[in-house]
This record gives sequence, C-alpha cells and structure tokens, in this order.
Amino acid sequence: MTRGRFITFEGGEGAGKSTQVLRLVARLESAGHEVVKTREPGGSPGAESIRDLVLRGAADRWSPVTETLLMYAARRDHIERVIRPALSRGAWVVCDRFADSTRAYQGAAGGTAPGLIAALETFVLEDIKPDLTLVFDLPVDIGLARAHARAGAEMRFESKGAAFHERLREGFRAIAEAEPERCALIDASGGMDEVEGEVWRAVSDRLTIHG
Amino acid sequence: MTRGRFITFEGGEGAGKSTQVLRLVARLESAGHEVVKTREPGGSPGAESIRDLVLRGAADRWSPVTETLLMYAARRDHIERVIRPALSRGAWVVCDRFADSTRAYQGAAGGTAPGLIAALETFVLEDIKPDLTLVFDLPVDIGLARAHARAGAEMRFESKGAAFHERLREGFRAIAEAEPERCALIDASGGMDEVEGEVWRAVSDRLTIHG
Ligand SMILES: Nc1ncnc2c1ncn2[C@@H]1O[C@H](COP(=O)(O)OP(=O)(O)OP(=O)(O)O)[C@@H](O)[C@H]1O
Ligand SMILES: Nc1ncnc2c1ncn2[C@@H]1O[C@H](COP(=O)(O)OP(=O)(O)OP(=O)(O)O)[C@@H](O)[C@H]1O
Ligand SMILES: [Mg+2]
Ligand SMILES: [Mg+2]
Repeated sequence: MTRGRFITFEGGEGAGKSTQVLRLVARLESAGHEVVKTREPGGSPGAESIRDLVLRGAADRWSPVTETLLMYAARRDHIERVIRPALSRGAWVVCDRFADSTRAYQGAAGGTAPGLIAALETFVLEDIKPDLTLVFDLPVDIGLARAHARAGAEMRFESKGAAFHERLREGFRAIAEAEPERCALIDASGGMDEVEGEVWRAVSDRLTIHG
Repeated sequence: MTRGRFITFEGGEGAGKSTQVLRLVARLESAGHEVVKTREPGGSPGAESIRDLVLRGAADRWSPVTETLLMYAARRDHIERVIRPALSRGAWVVCDRFADSTRAYQGAAGGTAPGLIAALETFVLEDIKPDLTLVFDLPVDIGLARAHARAGAEMRFESKGAAFHERLREGFRAIAEAEPERCALIDASGGMDEVEGEVWRAVSDRLTIHG
C-alpha cells in the first residue's frame, strides 16, 4: 500500500481555512479517497486539552517561546496518534493549520528564535512533512472582521494588535515564497466558491486524484 | 546588587527531595537570605496548569517526546515569571526538580533523543543554570515504597515499571558524574537528619553563606 497524502491549510485569522477544509474533504471523498479531516492545535484528545490552554485567556498568558513549546507538544501527540497512523494506512490527511502556523505566529510575528523552531521541526516532526500546503492570503482587516463576526471563547490571538497580524501575514507569504514546491499561495479575498475553485486547481494540479 | 544563587534538588520518586527542600530553605532564611522556594513541573500559575496535564492520568497518556515539550513549556513559564526575576533581585532560589529531571525521566529512562533535549537547554534555558544541584540517590525499591506511602493523584510516573525506575536512577547518577562542579551526589538512604547534614555540608562547602 502507498502512503497517503498530507495537505495542510495555513494563513491568518478569518482567512476562510476551516470553510475550505470542509469543501476540499467533500471533493476528495467524492473522488473515492479515505480522508481524515483534522486540525491544530488539537486533533487528538491530548492535543485538544493543550489547545484549551493555548487559545483561551489573556493575550499575554504565555510568552512566544512557551507557546511554541505547547504547540509542538500538541503537534507531537497529534502526529503520533492521528496523522502518522492515517498516512501509513493510505488515508489522505487534511489538516486545518500545522507547523507553518508556529513559524508565522510564534516565529515571524512573535519573535521566537528561528533556531528553536528549526530544532523542533527536526526532532519533533521527523519525516512528517505536508505534500501540499495551501497558504491563504488576505488583507488583515478583512480577516479580522470575518473572525470577529464568528467570535467565541478562543480569541487569544485575535486579541493581539494590528502590528502582530501584519507581521503574521508577511510571515506566511515568506513561507510560500521560500518553498514554492510545497506551498500554493491562495488569494482568499474572493467569494467562497471562487476560493474553492482556486484550492481545487492547486490540489488537482499538484497531486494525483483518483476517479 | 549581585545575582542570587540557584540551587536545584534532583533524583527519583520518594528520595526525600521535598522534605529536604523545606529544611534547606529554613536554614538559608536563618542565615539572612531572601529565599524563593519553588518546584517543577509548576512554580508559576501557567506551569502549574501544565503540571496537572503531565502528572495525572495513565502512564501512557503522553509519549516521552510530548512529555519533554510539556515539561519545557512549563519550565519556560516558570523561568520567565519566577526564577529569573528572583535571581535578578538577588534572592536565592531553591527548586524541587529542574532540567536534570527531563534528562533523566524523558531522556535516560524515556528514550527522548539527546539532541532534542540539548536544543531545548540551549534555546529555552538560555543562561539559567543551577549554581548547585543536589542529586539524591537511593535504591529504587526504597524510594518507591516511600512514595507509595504518601500517594495522591499525581502518580503517573510512580506507575511506570521497575525497569523505568532503574534507568532513571542510572540517568541521575550519570549527570552527577558528568558535571561534578555543579552536582553533589547525596546518599539519600539515611535518616532525615543525616541527609539534612549531608545537604548542608554540600551547600556550605560550595556556596558562600551569610551570617
Ligand atoms: N470567501 C469568503 N468570503 C466571505 N466570508 C467568508 C469566506 N470564507 C469564509 N468566510 C466567513 O468568514 C468567517 C471565518 O471563516 P473561517 O472560519 O473559515 O476562517 P479561518 O481561516 O478558519 O479562521 P481561523 O483562523 O480564525 O480559524 C466565517 O464566518 C466564514 O463563514
Ligand atoms: N530520609 C528519609 N527516611 C525515611 N523516609 C523519608 C526520608 N525522607 C523523606 N521520607 C519520607 O518519604 C516520603 C517521600 O519523601 P519526599 O516527598 O520528600 O520525597 P520526594 O523526593 O520529594 O518524592 P517525589 O519525587 O515523589 O516528589 C515522605 O513520606 C517522607 O516523609
Ligand atoms: Mg478556522
Ligand atoms: Mg517531592
């Protein structure tokens, strides 16, 4: 049996990732694939308990370095218990955020040393690397307006200032530019159907779909 | 003002660390020092919330790598909010467990790659290093019997098998042997007063005490 494919969605608050994850999963299932839809931080029971620590409370509850370590603790549990087993049995894994969110939120926007993030990628991710990453790009004010419209308890990052969110956007754009083989930059400013079409084009251009 | 001194207590379950931390703190306070008594995992509100995740539940709730990252997340918060501010204002910090517990529990006994632990020591501890580490050494069966006698909710590590605890003891002994300038190996098999005397001898031999 061949290993499954690993697709990640990345980008700032309210860019439309979770909306498009659902649509892509439906399309891949229609094409006959077993698909595991998952998210970070979280995705396994242990990682979801860490998610609650990270996404709730005051903006300064954790420093960027502490946050980096909590995110990687959650990620390791998620990889061990969900992602690696799914890929090994040939399933496709579609994940709402993954390691690039740490590079952008805690690294580019938060100021965590690149050396720490690089070491964690080496020792914690090991061979787990997305086959395709869709980087959703959108002006900061539009994304935050969308995110606030659907506000809930998990607002720690939304509550950080505008300068944080501008650095975040630049961080994601820099990742897409630095790794064009793995990443597709998605213009997320259009309507939902338009963005769905852009996502599907990137997936079907770059990965072999059944059916 | 001079930086304060940082003393850590290390060793396996039930070795008598917490008992002796109290006695050393009392002696240092009698000598006129401001002393901050603290512990790991925990020691700050954020780190205590991580402690609950790590020390409760089934033995296999977290893998050794995930555990390493959770311990370092807690440690970073503790350093930022308690240890570094205390040392900066000249206080002595006496800490019940610190970074050597990760080397021994998650590393030597748990099998986490030494490279990950070394990277975390570099990027997360930065310049925070104990001036003196007291490594409590005791046959495994005696320590576990003492620990079980005072059992509570935090039994995740106690519940691991005898082979784990033997590797742990060896891990701590190896640290003391590798860093004799920083570490004093304490024979923890004697009575409480006897061990207290041994601890005090190590502290007063190696650090300058007031009064
Ligand atoms: N293309 C779009 N145009 C307008 N609104 C959209 C679009 N896509 C999603 N939305 C709406 O914007 C809000 C945020 O969308 P969604 O939750 O998918 O974003 P997200 O990137 O997952 O956000 P977060 O990073 O906060 O999880 C939702 O209310 C959603 O219905
Ligand atoms: N020298 C000693 N002789 C006999 N019993 C002791 C001695 N020191 C401590 N004890 C008892 O052993 C038990 C464990 O001691 P303590 O809690 O100080 O160990 P610890 O090293 O902090 O354990 P843990 O690693 O589980 O936190 C307690 O009930 C304590 O009263
Ligand atoms: Mg979302
Ligand atoms: Mg104790």
